[in-house]
Amino acid sequence: MSERSFSYNSLIDFAKNVFTAIGCNIDDATLAARVLVAADVRGIDSHGVARLTGYVRLWEAKRVNATPAITIKYETPSTATIDGDAGLGLVVAPKAMQIAIDKARQVGTGWVAVGNSNHFGIAGYHAMMALEHDMIGIAMTNASALVAPTFSIEKMLGTNPVAVAIPAGDQPPFVADFATTTASNGKLEILQRKNAAAPIGWVQDEQGNTTDDANVLKKNGAMLPLGGDREHGSHKGYAMGSIVDIFSAVFSGASYGPWAPPFPAYIAMPDNMPGKGLGHFFGAMRIDAFRPAAEFKKHMDNWIDRFRNAKTAKGFESVLIPGDPERTMERQRMQEGIPVVPAVVQDLQTLADKLHIPFPV
Amino acid sequence: MSERSFSYNSLIDFAKNVFTAIGCNIDDATLAARVLVAADVRGIDSHGVARLTGYVRLWEAKRVNATPAITIKYETPSTATIDGDAGLGLVVAPKAMQIAIDKARQVGTGWVAVGNSNHFGIAGYHAMMALEHDMIGIAMTNASALVAPTFSIEKMLGTNPVAVAIPAGDQPPFVADFATTTASNGKLEILQRKNAAAPIGWVQDEQGNTTDDANVLKKNGAMLPLGGDREHGSHKGYAMGSIVDIFSAVFSGASYGPWAPPFPAYIAMPDNMPGKGLGHFFGAMRIDAFRPAAEFKKHMDNWIDRFRNAKTAKGFESVLIPGDPERTMERQRMQEGIPVVPAVVQDLQTLADKLHIPFPV
Repeated sequence: MSERSFSYNSLIDFAKNVFTAIGCNIDDATLAARVLVAADVRGIDSHGVARLTGYVRLWEAKRVNATPAITIKYETPSTATIDGDAGLGLVVAPKAMQIAIDKARQVGTGWVAVGNSNHFGIAGYHAMMALEHDMIGIAMTNASALVAPTFSIEKMLGTNPVAVAIPAGDQPPFVADFATTTASNGKLEILQRKNAAAPIGWVQDEQGNTTDDANVLKKNGAMLPLGGDREHGSHKGYAMGSIVDIFSAVFSGASYGPWAPPFPAYIAMPDNMPGKGLGHFFGAMRIDAFRPAAEFKKHMDNWIDRFRNAKTAKGFESVLIPGDPERTMERQRMQEGIPVVPAVVQDLQTLADKLHIPFPV
Repeated sequence: MSERSFSYNSLIDFAKNVFTAIGCNIDDATLAARVLVAADVRGIDSHGVARLTGYVRLWEAKRVNATPAITIKYETPSTATIDGDAGLGLVVAPKAMQIAIDKARQVGTGWVAVGNSNHFGIAGYHAMMALEHDMIGIAMTNASALVAPTFSIEKMLGTNPVAVAIPAGDQPPFVADFATTTASNGKLEILQRKNAAAPIGWVQDEQGNTTDDANVLKKNGAMLPLGGDREHGSHKGYAMGSIVDIFSAVFSGASYGPWAPPFPAYIAMPDNMPGKGLGHFFGAMRIDAFRPAAEFKKHMDNWIDRFRNAKTAKGFESVLIPGDPERTMERQRMQEGIPVVPAVVQDLQTLADKLHIPFPV
């Protein structure tokens, strides 16, 4: 197979068919497809259709429930705790974020912890749901352990991403979406595929020494928290990853730290799990709860404009605002199509054959 | 003057006398002293009595109002926006955090943006106020611009710290409190005083090249966001510092980005300030809004115990939990006294003479 380019709609249709084939109803399948392909179109290829096979394997292993009964376990005017009933995170997460938005509409802010869930795609999708409501959106999730805390050689935390989306007026919104590690696992996987060296500070070996071996995770190595080492602030990245783990999983009754369930279905579940499934945490804050919305947006435009026009170091055209690279990518891929690497094209073809659905659509 | 050691109570009394001398009422002076000296006792010497002279100079320059009328400008059941009336951040901040706690008691969570304020001491103090109420506390603040965004050579953000305090059961609480830069300004100042080199990744020169010159900020250099450079995730530190700036100052009507007011009173205020004073942002989340408190704490104990006992790299005794180093320091300094470097002892003596208050108490 060679690399191929697909339209947004064709990937959506294919993903929808896959989710329908494993038993999702049409609404859930459509929602899951939208969340999933948002990753491809924004350039975060590691979290898009490349993971379809992985989701299907989790379903085959009975770790994903295609027809979850999502329930609210605890609730106050500004909070809720949700049991995702082992559903796809791609479905559970946007429904939970919607609850946060509804609560914010009522009392100014809404905060929702979700347990018993699965991988939710890109955090940015859920955070950005708040934007059209003139709200700030926040999304985070724990994930299977790949990261060693400062001073440790044991994988204890996931890459635990956080996304924050902030509306502006004439300017596009501010959308930060980042793993709390030096580099995301997706970036590391690119180097693994190319057999290329990793920059120092991304990973460590089994003794805890930083190394340029991108494949060191298979040799008892670990990813490093943002900062890389103690002298460069890795204890801050470790703290951030921990906060994401606690908000997502200890609040919600999900499994936390080294007990977070693995994404690959062939890896056995950890022993003595202290909770159920993965956990997420969502927030929505109405901007007019704090300040008239038009005033806030005018100042956000000013903020963005000032930062974009900050003096650059030689060789750089302009300072980027969080969300700029993904927005540029989205514009390009919606027009020109979404390139998919040969290995993933092969994967999708195999999936199509197995589930008896057309590919390409 | 040589280095001297002071008891906690003697520094509290001295600071209280200083704040009373500039016109604070006794309650505010006591509160400000407690917040200030919490930094010394926890080992964050840069934010404690070393700053007393600076606060007094801001008052002399009429940038600090010793008798502020703190008002709520906007409010919903879960939020408030506060005008600090140019008061000491040391007074305005804990009062704002108390409002967040009161709102959380009513509706599950409380979120308070504060504008027209001043430097608020250590973020950790305010976040930790939530602990005794079985709540998670969050505190952040913007600060005068010292940090260049990724790709930039212009100082656009403060070191913009974030603190998150999470209660546990038998274990001590999890308390993260960190600048969103590779290293805090306080750590850089220590190197400046010693004329020592800075680790690569902490600061850059006026061309934007990383340098080991700890004094480079006086030569148009800048501090670096957590991550250090793009390859090591500095865009994530830049995003975090930006989020703190926006939550603290754009929500509240404070002055943001490069317009944040400088702490040293001899530096002129920026032109065309888009808001008033510094801004802070506080959050309180009742743990029983999400899950029965005893259950949450039992799992936090398990979380902390598991992480503390993670396998260490050679040469390290145990993995630290955020808050461990400050707690150890606090225990030691409450017993043995708080060491104050000669330059600060001299400063405090000068202040005592000027304000006609006894020193040492």
